[in-house]
Amino acid sequence: MKINGVVIEDTYAEAFPAWTSEVEITAATRYLAQEAGEHATGFASSLIGCGVEAGIDRYLSPINSPDGRPGCVILMAHPDKQQLQKQALQRLAECVLTAPTTAIFDGLPDAPERIPVRLHFYGDGYEYKTQVGNRNVWAIPIMGGEFTIEEEIGAVQGVAGGNFFIMGTDQMSTLTAAMAVVEVIDGTDGAAASFPGGITGSGSKVGSRKYKFMRAATNDAFCPTIKQKNPNSMVPDGVKAIFEIVIDGVNLEVIERAMADGIRAACRTPGVTHISAGNYGGTLGPYKLYLHELLS
Amino acid sequence: MKINGVVIEDTYAEAFPAWTSEVEITAATRYLAQEAGEHATGFASSLIGCGVEAGIDRYLSPINSPDGRPGCVILMAHPDKQQLQKQALQRLAECVLTAPTTAIFDGLPDAPERIPVRLHFYGDGYEYKTQVGNRNVWAIPIMGGEFTIEEEIGAVQGVAGGNFFIMGTDQMSTLTAAMAVVEVIDGTDGAAASFPGGITGSGSKVGSRKYKFMRAATNDAFCPTIKQKNPNSMVPDGVKAIFEIVIDGVNLEVIERAMADGIRAACRTPGVTHISAGNYGGTLGPYKLYLHELLS
Amino acid sequence: MKINGVVIEDTYAEAFPAWTSEVEITAATRYLAQEAGEHATGFASSLIGCGVEAGIDRYLSPINSPDGRPGCVILMAHPDKQQLQKQALQRLAECVLTAPTTAIFDGLPDAPERIPVRLHFYGDGYEYKTQVGNRNVWAIPIMGGEFTIEEEIGAVQGVAGGNFFIMGTDQMSTLTAAMAVVEVIDGTDGAAASFPGGITGSGSKVGSRKYKFMRAATNDAFCPTIKQKNPNSMVPDGVKAIFEIVIDGVNLEVIERAMADGIRAACRTPGVTHISAGNYGGTLGPYKLYLHELLS
Amino acid sequence: MKINGVVIEDTYAEAFPAWTSEVEITAATRYLAQEAGEHATGFASSLIGCGVEAGIDRYLSPINSPDGRPGCVILMAHPDKQQLQKQALQRLAECVLTAPTTAIFDGLPDAPERIPVRLHFYGDGYEYKTQVGNRNVWAIPIMGGEFTIEEEIGAVQGVAGGNFFIMGTDQMSTLTAAMAVVEVIDGTDGAAASFPGGITGSGSKVGSRKYKFMRAATNDAFCPTIKQKNPNSMVPDGVKAIFEIVIDGVNLEVIERAMADGIRAACRTPGVTHISAGNYGGTLGPYKLYLHELLS
Repeated sequence: MKINGVVIEDTYAEAFPAWTSEVEITAATRYLAQEAGEHATGFASSLIGCGVEAGIDRYLSPINSPDGRPGCVILMAHPDKQQLQKQALQRLAECVLTAPTTAIFDGLPDAPERIPVRLHFYGDGYEYKTQVGNRNVWAIPIMGGEFTIEEEIGAVQGVAGGNFFIMGTDQMSTLTAAMAVVEVIDGTDGAAASFPGGITGSGSKVGSRKYKFMRAATNDAFCPTIKQKNPNSMVPDGVKAIFEIVIDGVNLEVIERAMADGIRAACRTPGVTHISAGNYGGTLGPYKLYLHELLS
Repeated sequence: MKINGVVIEDTYAEAFPAWTSEVEITAATRYLAQEAGEHATGFASSLIGCGVEAGIDRYLSPINSPDGRPGCVILMAHPDKQQLQKQALQRLAECVLTAPTTAIFDGLPDAPERIPVRLHFYGDGYEYKTQVGNRNVWAIPIMGGEFTIEEEIGAVQGVAGGNFFIMGTDQMSTLTAAMAVVEVIDGTDGAAASFPGGITGSGSKVGSRKYKFMRAATNDAFCPTIKQKNPNSMVPDGVKAIFEIVIDGVNLEVIERAMADGIRAACRTPGVTHISAGNYGGTLGPYKLYLHELLS
Repeated sequence: MKINGVVIEDTYAEAFPAWTSEVEITAATRYLAQEAGEHATGFASSLIGCGVEAGIDRYLSPINSPDGRPGCVILMAHPDKQQLQKQALQRLAECVLTAPTTAIFDGLPDAPERIPVRLHFYGDGYEYKTQVGNRNVWAIPIMGGEFTIEEEIGAVQGVAGGNFFIMGTDQMSTLTAAMAVVEVIDGTDGAAASFPGGITGSGSKVGSRKYKFMRAATNDAFCPTIKQKNPNSMVPDGVKAIFEIVIDGVNLEVIERAMADGIRAACRTPGVTHISAGNYGGTLGPYKLYLHELLS
Repeated sequence: MKINGVVIEDTYAEAFPAWTSEVEITAATRYLAQEAGEHATGFASSLIGCGVEAGIDRYLSPINSPDGRPGCVILMAHPDKQQLQKQALQRLAECVLTAPTTAIFDGLPDAPERIPVRLHFYGDGYEYKTQVGNRNVWAIPIMGGEFTIEEEIGAVQGVAGGNFFIMGTDQMSTLTAAMAVVEVIDGTDGAAASFPGGITGSGSKVGSRKYKFMRAATNDAFCPTIKQKNPNSMVPDGVKAIFEIVIDGVNLEVIERAMADGIRAACRTPGVTHISAGNYGGTLGPYKLYLHELLS
């Protein structure tokens, strides 16, 4: 299968179920909301070494945010609901409660599953219940004024680890394609790419062949600079760089759409020659997203 | 004491010693270096709930970075050297190694104390030693090309928790002053402000009066909205908002300079009426930074 | 009339008809498209002293741009169609053709009125006609590769000068409200705010009372610092700052919606006390946008 | 001559003298200063079609700006002093006076040549003289508060048109090198790159071979895609993209340093193979900047 001359390999991306929450962060300006959102979703690229996978899903205009201020929506995902709750609590406490002028609202108000985020104790007895629009919130006196929080946030059974590989003739052209894909995911509600800038240059395999104490190591079959010395190399001829896009989302449909639209965008960038995807023989998760099906 | 009509209260900031490392992150473009640096220093506002305190110290021009590419320098601080090492390893692995086109270099090459950051095992045997400029590095084959890292980073006994409070007649004027202070700290080499956007709107006291399970709670004495109901309030009349700046640095002199320059900048913003600082009766740390001394 | 406690004055904004074009600028990355778009719409705040009024209307995802790359859409407006054509030609030649990796497409393909933008002569005979998607374009060999342009751009009879005043108790709170309004206009397709950052702090009146050679001067009736010495002052008691939002759009309906949504957003920011609008007794233009009607 | 394996061609950049002013723009926040500075230097890439060449030179910390606020410094250049004055007046009036919270100060206070920028008439008689620090300024009542301006700005005989070409094996690698060069120029005080993002992808030759009415046309000798059909092509074998950097500066020494440092940065980017420069047989200007001399 080819799109715009780019070979779409006949393979699949392996994804796994993850409890997924979305939180709306508003602030006096979009800049302040973004600073809080980026801080809260930092150090959250991959479950291999971070407590949660997280990223900014989208931005909120004042006309459709709960308190009429600019904002952003962050997505957090973890297969274990207790871990998701713990991380959400810590990150909202350390990175959003502390940020100037912010407020927190539930981003999935229709989800039946609820996660408590008990930040009102921070008020030391001075906190009180109130309403913002139709949301029941706590108001907590802080040095900067008052902090507002809706303490229960919705969680759904989402999907993590949707992915594909962009392969090209040189590093910067291939990276440019990956940056176009990030624009597509930014425009897809309910999906986020958790790596720095939404892109990873160092996709991993599970475990290590040589160093047994490593939980993950470089995905050597897809490393272009060692194609000649690696008998298991799967790097196509002429490919000099491969960037991976990893997508977490609130449901499977969102992941499928983000992957399909993203791949199509990548295929329009000069220098891109192949698209593939990461899978681990079914050991990672139950979802198999076949590229050819997604794109037909 | 007054500066530009602003009352400088006769008090001190209490700071504490912390092992501090700096890491240079370079990339193909400044944007890519910044994305990695922000990700690596996310979820790192305060030791109360984060594994480390961290922030971007400064940016590197191609003409003064180790590999001739644009970059940024991140600062990480923790009182316990083992914790600093653990966090540095995790954050560099998850947020910089994974980011597109990045490389890592020691930001404190003259520091006698060295922290190992053994990322070369990620290469699964394909990694090799080489040189970039005068730096001894590992080159690790990755999907995007090769990742370069200087695996030992310097650490010094720095100072964390330098701070001051900006008080003003309304929230946005006071916040504007805080944003000017952040510009000053951004221009101070060797210092970083770890909160989101460099500012916190919710300074804490140690422990809680009412909820004994809390390690920290709102600094009620400095919360303007409860001034009337709190007999211990230290909010001056007319003050409606207080923002705190917290500064970590590689040594005491840097903290002192950042505090003095920052306070002077805050005092030039209309609406700012008082400057104070946070201290905890000497329970937090040995450094007492008296505002009047810093500014005379 | 009050919204959220904010007084909406019983007045109208005076707007005027203007030929309006939209141009789609795509590039290898969103950053590059934005740089070109901002450059092309710089020095274009007001017809009082600029050749055209212009601004960025919105951004394009790769999935809905003509060439599958990220982009932005700029809006340009002038009452005189010849002037609009001249400015469009100059600005696209100097600021978009020169920018790295950009392409130009008509942003109003359904508009019957067409403006020629003959940039293909720049190719000095090496240019050729081709197609991108369903668009007929010229490809012009340049040093960076090839520049693609759809040489006829649509123009419609739009509306310029839609406006309102945000009044508040202090400068930074009032400005924060104005920044929230800019977020609303950014989210309104077909509208742009041409002043720097989308906001003006120095609204004008037509002509000058004292200096006869001036075409425009400060709108003294709305200057808070001279309220006491100006017998004609219309500054409400307690108002210390007034920022004006000026909106150009492709039709009247877009202007009305942007004004109504924008005013509602402004009314939710603490410190805002009054909303008014600029009019000149009908001398400027035929459109009278009554605030009370827009908001009911 | 080779640097890092990159061929430095034995040629020179042709530059010309230009009256050059610098203006300091301060504002409540760096963002607001930057918005005004970018607006004032938009539509100012080249004298071929713009009224002036202009760009942001550098940013000001609150600790070294005239009024203790964040700011930026813009550079404007034109060979004709009257034109420079006219453009400075229009651009400061339309793009800085109108921007929220800004102030204007002379950026070259030691230059003996002074350019008047009479904006105080805008105050319609309500303006008054005052001092900020050691600067004599006008304060003009505006809707947002007061606008402050130092009305005489210094001008020096600077140099415009310093330039070099970056040639590489593919478009995005070559562009990445150009972006690194922009970082170098951003760090060079007294220099600015006036094209969008600091880079041009469509360098010009003077006049056109085929279309006599054109003042400038594509520099066909350096267009890679027509190398085969153009007998005069000077594109080296293997080169697929060429980006030009154009630098204006306050004196010759600044231009020389920016060119030398910039070329060295470009030579460290993978994919760059040649550096050349633009000259027009001495018809454009008296300055000949030989690449080999600059780099030895």
